[in-house]
Amino acid sequence: MSWVEDAAGSAYDLDNLPYGVFSIDDSARRVGVRIGDFVLDASAAAALGGDPGNGPDLATAWGRPTLNDFMALGHDAWQVARAWLVEVLGAEVHRDRVEPLLVPLSEVTLHQPFEVADYVDFYCCLQHATNVGRIFRPDGEALLPNWRHLPVGYHGRAGTVVVSGTDVRRPRGQRLPAGSSAQVRPSPELGPTRRLDIEAELAFVVGAPTPLGTQVPTSAFAEHVFGVTPLNDWSARDIQAWEYVPLGPFLGKSFATSISAWVTPLEALEHARVALPGQDPPPLPHLQVEEPAGFDVDFEVELNGEVVSRPPYAAMYWSPAQMLAHLTSNGASLRTGDLYASGTISGDDRDQRGSFLELSWGGRDPFGSSDRTFLEDGDTVTLRATAPGALGGRIALGDVTGTVLPSCST
Amino acid sequence: MSWVEDAAGSAYDLDNLPYGVFSIDDSARRVGVRIGDFVLDASAAAALGGDPGNGPDLATAWGRPTLNDFMALGHDAWQVARAWLVEVLGAEVHRDRVEPLLVPLSEVTLHQPFEVADYVDFYCCLQHATNVGRIFRPDGEALLPNWRHLPVGYHGRAGTVVVSGTDVRRPRGQRLPAGSSAQVRPSPELGPTRRLDIEAELAFVVGAPTPLGTQVPTSAFAEHVFGVTPLNDWSARDIQAWEYVPLGPFLGKSFATSISAWVTPLEALEHARVALPGQDPPPLPHLQVEEPAGFDVDFEVELNGEVVSRPPYAAMYWSPAQMLAHLTSNGASLRTGDLYASGTISGDDRDQRGSFLELSWGGRDPFGSSDRTFLEDGDTVTLRATAPGALGGRIALGDVTGTVLPSCST
Repeated sequence: MSWVEDAAGSAYDLDNLPYGVFSIDDSARRVGVRIGDFVLDASAAAALGGDPGNGPDLATAWGRPTLNDFMALGHDAWQVARAWLVEVLGAEVHRDRVEPLLVPLSEVTLHQPFEVADYVDFYCCLQHATNVGRIFRPDGEALLPNWRHLPVGYHGRAGTVVVSGTDVRRPRGQRLPAGSSAQVRPSPELGPTRRLDIEAELAFVVGAPTPLGTQVPTSAFAEHVFGVTPLNDWSARDIQAWEYVPLGPFLGKSFATSISAWVTPLEALEHARVALPGQDPPPLPHLQVEEPAGFDVDFEVELNGEVVSRPPYAAMYWSPAQMLAHLTSNGASLRTGDLYASGTISGDDRDQRGSFLELSWGGRDPFGSSDRTFLEDGDTVTLRATAPGALGGRIALGDVTGTVLPSCST
Repeated sequence: MSWVEDAAGSAYDLDNLPYGVFSIDDSARRVGVRIGDFVLDASAAAALGGDPGNGPDLATAWGRPTLNDFMALGHDAWQVARAWLVEVLGAEVHRDRVEPLLVPLSEVTLHQPFEVADYVDFYCCLQHATNVGRIFRPDGEALLPNWRHLPVGYHGRAGTVVVSGTDVRRPRGQRLPAGSSAQVRPSPELGPTRRLDIEAELAFVVGAPTPLGTQVPTSAFAEHVFGVTPLNDWSARDIQAWEYVPLGPFLGKSFATSISAWVTPLEALEHARVALPGQDPPPLPHLQVEEPAGFDVDFEVELNGEVVSRPPYAAMYWSPAQMLAHLTSNGASLRTGDLYASGTISGDDRDQRGSFLELSWGGRDPFGSSDRTFLEDGDTVTLRATAPGALGGRIALGDVTGTVLPSCST
């Protein structure tokens, strides 16, 4: 447990230690590590001289304005860094020198923690895919034929990934007039989306890159993935429904995707590993994975302060190691900063669904104390997530929050 | 016309002047300008002192290892730079000082000219979309309902965009066994694609960025787009056919996308502007465009030295100004280095089709002197493109070439 004030036993004790990027007033952006309600100025701490002599140059990597250089150092350096942080924040002997480098969270500005290289969004939840299939194709098979054979995914817009706290302006776009159908000579119109939604997801951040032509086996997942962040894949359902055939979602998603200001290292989730719920049929050999391959991360979706859903990540059909193996099975290279997300997390029960589309069953069944179907201007959505930590309690993943602004008139 | 040896009257005269990035032996990468069969060492030329005094710092921007910093200077700087290049490469008075800074093309190594931010691939050709619809859905409507209302597009993988000359390894992936169908309890297998294809496209490179929440009207196209490059959207049709529902192409495309080593400035295409072939129904107001909005760029697809197709870009239904207005209609931001491509270019005639899928009509009708349907290992495909220039001849866009390597066994 940490000597830092009120950190011991909290959701941000030594078994968590997420990384972010912060500044104070007009100071330069640099890497910080959250402990309790403080941010450790990591490069300044490393520069004190306690930095492991023959190890990676953490003082330099942590002095950068993004996590990318640190993440690019690779798995061994991440382990060295974490062990060093546990030592300096855990052993009283370091307190006098390190305590001056702790800044109260309330005094810092948090920034986007890393520069996103490519962003991929998967569709890994059986319950979500089934719900969406039933809502949109009530007379057909809920699941498409490929779904149980590979983690379906697509590329999203890396340039519009924003950090938690960034307001989200209601997007305009082409959509069919309410009540009309695309079947009979459609007449789309341009206007603000009427079906603004969220998707509660868990996302994975690649640290160690690979050259073109390399496949990453499921067993090498932890060599390449640095950490995780909750992710809100804001979605405009009416724009998406009109545009998405045959090449997939585009403007219905690309206006904003929110991530946390904190990236939780994968090592902090070792105690959260759980077996997958089961895969039938068994995947092809290159997608088979050693159990436990899942993660017991519990989400809460909060709408204007009210918890409206509790999606369980442990229910996900496809694991992140399988997503990465699939993504690279054609030899696609990885870059530091690649971000891939699980897709909406939904459990078996209504109050475990991770999108408003499912919570309101396509807009037909309002939910929550405000009888909501889709998002209204001024709404604030916050995703919270926790997981079992190594010290017996639960660690918190960084919140992801955003408030909906009205559409611009022009 | 240029004083540079053999440049006058060539396809790389003063009315062209594409930008690339080069090195000599182990020297640092820097920006070069192609003139005839030479590369001008642009930063060294700008540093001679002929650089416009109160203008942009071209010597610095051109000294970088990518075009991104130069492109980020914006439209006015691009015009100043081009006028300056025309002056120093056109007026004999500069010859003595500038000629030593010309390097024969055969002595340089060309590199990827810019760092790709986000990559979007559109689907803007009526003939191509109709052909694909007829091949895959022979009993249905060839065009989907949204096609004439918006330029359909999707995000591709920016990290696997490679420069012309890069070999392309045949990707492995999940596909259905030959002859089977997804309808009856599918049993996919993993293996090298059997239907490796090309797509001949024209791509547009964004120089001037926009903040999140900004829409770029069609009239502002030239303010933001720096230049163009031919693009080969290598495609694995069997992988794509199995994976693409419902979220679009992913691994069937993400293994490699080739661009030219040369980015032709948009200004060089002013004499290539032509009216669009016509849009019915008229697009919504935000997608309407002032004519001439098309470009008269003629492509050749060369397979192992034989021209197998001549796709005419002038036939494209949607213009690049409309693609950009659509892409930003939801407020998505632009970054310097954003790349967006037209989609396959196909004309009305068989020998104008820009993909092997269409040339062989789904693999049923072999074409060319080698009776080809899809690509074989060892095949080399080169895209060439030319357009009317300002000096009365035709300017050449940089070639895009790549050779297919066999799949890795592991």
